[in-house]
Amino acid sequence: MKQETLVKELQKLVGKEKVKGSIDWRLSYAYDGTPTGYKGIPDAVVFPENTEDVAKILSFANENRIPVYPRGAGSGLTGGSAPLQGGIVVSTEKMNRIIEIDEANLAVLTEPGVVTYDLQKEVEKRGLFYPPDPSSYKFSTIGGNIAENAGGPRCVKYGVTKDYVMQLEVVFADGTVANLGSKAVKSVAGYNLKDLIVGSEGTLAFITKAYLKLIPAPEAVRTAMAIFPKVEQAAQAVADMFKVKVIPTACEFLDKNSIVAVENYAKIGLPTHAEGLLIIEVDGYEAIVDELIHRAIDVCKKAGAIEVKIASDPKEREAIWNARRAVSPAIVQLKPKKINEDVVVPRSRIPELIKNVYKIADKYNLMVVNFGHAGDGNIHVNFMYEPHEEDRVKEAVREVFLLTLELEGSVSGEHGIGWMKKEFLPLEVKDALEKMKAVKRALDPNNILNPGKIFDL
Amino acid sequence: MKQETLVKELQKLVGKEKVKGSIDWRLSYAYDGTPTGYKGIPDAVVFPENTEDVAKILSFANENRIPVYPRGAGSGLTGGSAPLQGGIVVSTEKMNRIIEIDEANLAVLTEPGVVTYDLQKEVEKRGLFYPPDPSSYKFSTIGGNIAENAGGPRCVKYGVTKDYVMQLEVVFADGTVANLGSKAVKSVAGYNLKDLIVGSEGTLAFITKAYLKLIPAPEAVRTAMAIFPKVEQAAQAVADMFKVKVIPTACEFLDKNSIVAVENYAKIGLPTHAEGLLIIEVDGYEAIVDELIHRAIDVCKKAGAIEVKIASDPKEREAIWNARRAVSPAIVQLKPKKINEDVVVPRSRIPELIKNVYKIADKYNLMVVNFGHAGDGNIHVNFMYEPHEEDRVKEAVREVFLLTLELEGSVSGEHGIGWMKKEFLPLEVKDALEKMKAVKRALDPNNILNPGKIFDL
Ligand SMILES: Cc1cc2nc3c(=O)[nH]c(=O)nc-3n(C[C@H](O)[C@H](O)[C@H](O)COP(=O)(O)OP(=O)(O)OC[C@H]3O[C@@H](n4cnc5c(N)ncnc54)[C@H](O)[C@@H]3O)c2cc1C
Ligand SMILES: Cc1cc2nc3c(=O)[nH]c(=O)nc-3n(C[C@H](O)[C@H](O)[C@H](O)COP(=O)(O)OP(=O)(O)OC[C@H]3O[C@@H](n4cnc5c(N)ncnc54)[C@H](O)[C@@H]3O)c2cc1C
Repeated sequence: MKQETLVKELQKLVGKEKVKGSIDWRLSYAYDGTPTGYKGIPDAVVFPENTEDVAKILSFANENRIPVYPRGAGSGLTGGSAPLQGGIVVSTEKMNRIIEIDEANLAVLTEPGVVTYDLQKEVEKRGLFYPPDPSSYKFSTIGGNIAENAGGPRCVKYGVTKDYVMQLEVVFADGTVANLGSKAVKSVAGYNLKDLIVGSEGTLAFITKAYLKLIPAPEAVRTAMAIFPKVEQAAQAVADMFKVKVIPTACEFLDKNSIVAVENYAKIGLPTHAEGLLIIEVDGYEAIVDELIHRAIDVCKKAGAIEVKIASDPKEREAIWNARRAVSPAIVQLKPKKINEDVVVPRSRIPELIKNVYKIADKYNLMVVNFGHAGDGNIHVNFMYEPHEEDRVKEAVREVFLLTLELEGSVSGEHGIGWMKKEFLPLEVKDALEKMKAVKRALDPNNILNPGKIFDL
Repeated sequence: MKQETLVKELQKLVGKEKVKGSIDWRLSYAYDGTPTGYKGIPDAVVFPENTEDVAKILSFANENRIPVYPRGAGSGLTGGSAPLQGGIVVSTEKMNRIIEIDEANLAVLTEPGVVTYDLQKEVEKRGLFYPPDPSSYKFSTIGGNIAENAGGPRCVKYGVTKDYVMQLEVVFADGTVANLGSKAVKSVAGYNLKDLIVGSEGTLAFITKAYLKLIPAPEAVRTAMAIFPKVEQAAQAVADMFKVKVIPTACEFLDKNSIVAVENYAKIGLPTHAEGLLIIEVDGYEAIVDELIHRAIDVCKKAGAIEVKIASDPKEREAIWNARRAVSPAIVQLKPKKINEDVVVPRSRIPELIKNVYKIADKYNLMVVNFGHAGDGNIHVNFMYEPHEEDRVKEAVREVFLLTLELEGSVSGEHGIGWMKKEFLPLEVKDALEKMKAVKRALDPNNILNPGKIFDL
């Protein structure tokens, strides 16, 4: 179908004002947060306002074999919403209402375009808590979070987005509207398609509503920092924390190079010879948080921490977190380019991961910085480089993925596969890949939903 | 294939001693826990000892279009392991090793035939905790629990079986062996087939190994009981508990008829005019459990409880739980037959459910007893009846399901669909049913895995 015809047909279908076809609009929606720039330009950008609109668009696209690219805030880091083959970008920007906060059942019914932060603030007003906290929470959408099964620092205690999705309203490729999951706390009626859709990166169905679980907000929080001469000591402290029954709300790790970068950047007095820094946060009942943070700190001391600090007020808490927040701005100053991989390994393998990543960086003569969610083994491996080093970076990244898999980890803890990591997926999932493809073909036989992502058919 | 030939072929494939073909064996494996008796007799019963055996059996069955019925302990209540169309029952009895307790990563790798209780005891020796606790835990298997996504009283705080499955080794219908999920705490690489297999009742893949998440065992537990004149008051107490930030480990409910039945049976002094009884358990840190149980009890009093009791020692705790445990033996004395439906509704709809179940029982002049997991809205509706009342019971059960769906609940919170509830599934999942069937066809094109269950193709 010609581009102009497509735009006109879509306008007839859902209304003129909801469809944009000018080159400005199309270019603006060709990008997401992936640092490689755009890889395709859509023929039209559509802003549906309700489920019916989405169903119409999908039925039409399915009949005419036109690619559909669902899009939230476009903050994805693996090119998930990139319109590789043109077609229609379907943005959820106008499906951004929180429909109902169901206080009696601790849940919220929302449209997919609501920004994570807005939803969190809204439920907090009622003393409730929506834990999933990707660092992009101030702009990413609930729909994008669900499609990527986003995680964040708090996930070591509270789990990932999937753990909060009770029911989804979705539109399948053929326009079928269905509710998956249940508003009841548990249900085993039929196949669990809900959790199949979560994390499917917009390739199996379009999410039009989500009924999300909330929990009572914790009463209190305590924060501490510990610095270790050796990375193994930091890893030991993480493991031992669970043994003294402390499940931290967050347990963030900075490696030697991160510490050095932060110190050079922010001059906050970190010892630059240390190999590991942990930021530990616990939350829960007022009557117990002090005990918990002391248990955590004792564990750190026993593991060999040379410096520990418990925040005694919100200002000190901020100061501790600022060390973590400074990492990203600090490291982008080191080199003009950066690639951030979010590999994840079983907690006990973190030291092996870090040591071997350093070896890989040495081998390719590259600068590497590792930090992230130690509590769940999810380490962001960042190579910082000059444009001319790109080829070596590619080789190094490949070795990091192979290393991760050797350590029984996963090539992506948070960011998904998109088009960026397609070549590495088979290394991890092996013979399951054909079964994934079979599921894709079953639910989207014409391959119109986000084609070119996760794998090629 | 003739029955004798099938047995011989299977013996050639995996070894003589692993295959049974006599009528005694075949009849013994025609049953499960479903009270309706057997509905089909297998041609052979096979006891594989490892993944390879299973892969061989499935490849063979797939090539020859022979139905395969996976079987754990056969404790299912909806006929999940019933060999409806003959074929091969594949029992996991000999795949019953706990392979490794991974203390550093808080996980256990196990074969599917391990009994839930045995696994729990084994990990408890290391101070670890596997929370899923179906009442059948003393005989049900981990494989059966995963295939049914079993739940139990503790699931209000700790979640269901699904929440503890990190990685599965499975054999698909065509003999493909694959690992689904990850040993890392989180992974978003490719489709989440793991959670699709969990709860799929042996219709999509055969589970040969499971890597299960463990948590540190709670330090302490407190138990209380509260009795309410009105069912609404009990429901209010449940809702309010979450408001004071108490997430109980268990929150079990007995309705008026359960209370009467228990009192007549066990004479423990329950007030037989009361409409609701709650058993509340909290667990966690030693320093906080007393406060929590008092918060819970205060909430009960405010909601109108006429009697509350906190157990002050293990003996008193046992006494409280005995009231709950007496329900099943008490009610089977009331009438010769019983049907137990495990419907589930959003917590706030429990009073409506109970009141209307009574109306339905009145309408059909039947005896009904309701009890179960109030904390997650999962109420076991039990009709007690004489054989000649069977037709009326069927009608009443149907109305209970329709009522449940009207209240935005689910026809099964725990027991699954099997063949028993097939006719009700479409009422709940509606247009998603065709998508479920599409997934089944994609993963098991010859329909050899547990045919006749969940839905007909
Ligand atoms: C600075 C920064 C920090 C980040 N930190 C984290 C982090 O800590 N943890 C983490 O997990 N991620 C992180 N991310 C990645 C990204 O923010 C997440 O993947 C987020 O969930 C994407 O949400 P979005 O609304 O921007 O979705 P988009 O980027 O627009 O889309 C992401 C994917 O979801 C699909 N999609 C979007 N909406 C729908 C829908 N309604 N139905 C079906 N499919 C849909 C798209 O097709 C695409 O495949 C970060 C990104 C940035 C830029
Ligand atoms: C007294 C009693 C109390 C019960 N209480 C509860 C309860 O509180 N909560 C609850 O959830 N259930 C309960 N149940 C139901 C039942 O115990 C559960 O469904 C349990 O999970 C079944 O386990 P099993 O090993 O007996 O499996 P089976 O009954 O043998 O099989 C159940 C299903 O799993 C499949 N299956 C078994 N093993 C595998 C495998 N390795 N791979 C693939 N598929 C497989 C079978 O094909 C079948 O569809 C109760 C049952 C009884 C008799």
